[in-house]
Amino acid sequence: MSQTGARRPGPDLPLTFDDVRAAADRLAGVAHRTPVLTSRTLDALTGATVLLKAENLQRTGAFKFRGAYHRISALSAAERDRGVCAWSSGNHAQAVALSAALTGTRATVLMPEDAPAAKRDAAEQYGATILTYDRYGTDREDGVRHLTEDRGMVFVHAFDDPMVMAGQGTAALELIEDVRTLDALVVPMSGGGLMAGSATAARALLPGVELVGAEPAAGNDTALSLAAGRRIRIPVGRTIADGQQAATPGELTFEVNRHAVDAVLLADDDALIATMVLLYERLKTVVEPSGASALAVVLANAERFAGRRVGVVLSGGNVGAARFAALLSSAAS
Amino acid sequence: MSQTGARRPGPDLPLTFDDVRAAADRLAGVAHRTPVLTSRTLDALTGATVLLKAENLQRTGAFKFRGAYHRISALSAAERDRGVCAWSSGNHAQAVALSAALTGTRATVLMPEDAPAAKRDAAEQYGATILTYDRYGTDREDGVRHLTEDRGMVFVHAFDDPMVMAGQGTAALELIEDVRTLDALVVPMSGGGLMAGSATAARALLPGVELVGAEPAAGNDTALSLAAGRRIRIPVGRTIADGQQAATPGELTFEVNRHAVDAVLLADDDALIATMVLLYERLKTVVEPSGASALAVVLANAERFAGRRVGVVLSGGNVGAARFAALLSSAAS
Repeated sequence: MSQTGARRPGPDLPLTFDDVRAAADRLAGVAHRTPVLTSRTLDALTGATVLLKAENLQRTGAFKFRGAYHRISALSAAERDRGVCAWSSGNHAQAVALSAALTGTRATVLMPEDAPAAKRDAAEQYGATILTYDRYGTDREDGVRHLTEDRGMVFVHAFDDPMVMAGQGTAALELIEDVRTLDALVVPMSGGGLMAGSATAARALLPGVELVGAEPAAGNDTALSLAAGRRIRIPVGRTIADGQQAATPGELTFEVNRHAVDAVLLADDDALIATMVLLYERLKTVVEPSGASALAVVLANAERFAGRRVGVVLSGGNVGAARFAALLSSAAS
Repeated sequence: MSQTGARRPGPDLPLTFDDVRAAADRLAGVAHRTPVLTSRTLDALTGATVLLKAENLQRTGAFKFRGAYHRISALSAAERDRGVCAWSSGNHAQAVALSAALTGTRATVLMPEDAPAAKRDAAEQYGATILTYDRYGTDREDGVRHLTEDRGMVFVHAFDDPMVMAGQGTAALELIEDVRTLDALVVPMSGGGLMAGSATAARALLPGVELVGAEPAAGNDTALSLAAGRRIRIPVGRTIADGQQAATPGELTFEVNRHAVDAVLLADDDALIATMVLLYERLKTVVEPSGASALAVVLANAERFAGRRVGVVLSGGNVGAARFAALLSSAAS
C-alpha cells in the first residue's frame, strides 16, 4: 500500500475526474443509469458481497454507448456533416451507429468478417454502413485511412480517446454513487478504455479501492504489458470473448492503467461460459462472453475477494440465443 | 362495456382487494418488489406501450413465492410443527420450500417425474423433501392424502386458496402502483391464481382495464371453461410450458376469473420459444416458456393492443441453459 500515492492518476495523465463528471452530465437522460444487481447465490459462492453493474442493460447492450455518445455528441456542425467512422468487433459499432443517429450524423463502421451476426445486424439497424475486414490480417488501418483522409470522416476510436475514456468511466461513477463503498472493483479489459475511465472515477472517490482487470487467458496483452511496464503486442487472441481481442493496450489508456491497476486476472473460455450460465440460471440476466469476464475471475479467485465488497462490471450482453446454445455445446463436448 | 358492473368482483367472491392489500403488507421486505421493464424494440414491434412486470426476478425465480409465503407465514405454531406439503410442477415447489425455510417449518413437495431438473434441484436446495409422481397419471391425490391425513401436514395449494390468490395479486398491485395507468393487463393462466389476484387488484384500482389471460394452445382449459361458463377438464397439455399444465381451472379462482377476465388468448410452443429468444436477445432477460406466454400473445395479436398501455406479467424465469438450448434446436428443426 506504500505505492498508493504513486498509483493515483495525476495531472499529467490524459484523463481527470472532472472529465468523467463532465461526461456524466452529457450522458444524463440519454444513457441508461443501469441497475446494480445482487444475488444471495453469488455472495454464497464467493464469500464476498458482489455488486454487479449491469451494463448489459445499457442502450445498445453494452457500456460502449457511454463513450461513443460522449465523443460524437461533442462534434461540431461541420464534423457532423462529414460523418464519423470507426472500427469495432461489434459493441462499439452499435454504440457509434446509435450515437450518430441520435445526433444527426452518419456512421461508417469497419467490422471483422467473423464478428457475431447479431452485432453486425444491430449496427445496420441503427443506420450505419458496415464494411468488413479480416480480423487476423492487417487491412483495418488502410480502411480507416481511406475513410478519414479521402472522405473526411471523423474517426471515433473505441478506447484510445480521452472523451471516450471519460464516457466509459461514468459506469464506475454511477456504481460508486449507488453503493457508496467498495473494497475492490473488477473491470473487463481489452483496449483499456473502460478501466481507464473507471479507475479515474474510483481513485478519486475511493482512493484505497483495489482495481482489478479481467482479461481472457488467450488475450492477455494487458497483463503482459503491465508486468513489462510497456505495451506488449500479442497475436489476436483466439477466444470466444469477441469484445476482448485487442492485440495491445491503447497508448492513452495504458498511461492511466499502468498507474492505476493493481492486478489483472485471467479467465479461460470454459470459465466464461460457466459464468454466462450462472448468470442465466440464477440471475436471469444475459451477458456475452466478454461481459462475463470480470465475474468469472472473481468466481475463480474467491479467496482473494472473500469478506469484501466487490464491484463487478458486466460490460455487455450482446450474444444471440443460437450462439449461446453453440457455446454451451462446445463447452460440454 | 355494459357488463363492466357485472364483471367487477363483488363481496360474494372468495377474494377482495383488502385481501390483496393485506398480502402486500405481509410480503413487504420479504418478497422482491420486482422492476418494470420496458423496451423500445417491444414498443416498435407491437405499436403499444408495453410494461413488463419482471416476476422472473422474484425470489425463487417466479411469482409463486408471493402466494406461498403469504399462506405459510400465517400458520400457527402447531401447524408449523407438523410441516407443510404441496404438489407442483416446479415453481410452487421452490416457493413452498423457501417459504417453509424462512418461517421455520418443513416442506414436502410432490413433483411430476418429468419436472425440469433445475426446478427439482432448487426446491431440494431450499431444504424441501421431494417425492415424485406421474404427471399423466392419477396418483397425485393419493400422495397428498397420505401426507395430510396420515402425517398431519398442512396442504398449501398452488392456486385454489384465497391467501395464495391474494399473495399473487400483489404482482399486479405493484405494477399498477408503479405505472399508474393501464389500458390492458395480460397475465399467464394455469390454475388461475395469478389472474384471480391480479384481476382483484386491477378491477379495484383501474375499473376499466381489459383483463386478458394467456394460455398455451395445448393447455386451453381456461379458454374452454370461460366459453362454457363452467370448469372444463382437459387431458394434461403436452406443451413446453411446464408451468401451465393445469387440466382444469381452480374452483375458487374460476369464481373470480369468470367474472373478471375479458378474453383468453393462446400461444403455441413455437411462439413461446420465439418470445423467449426475443427477451434474451433484446431485453437480456431470461424467462421460462410459461413466463413468456403473456408477451407471446401480445406479439401475436399486436393489432389488438396497438396504441394502448399494456401491462404484461413475465411470470417466471426458471429454465436451465441446457433446456433453453434444446428448445431452440427443437424449434429450428
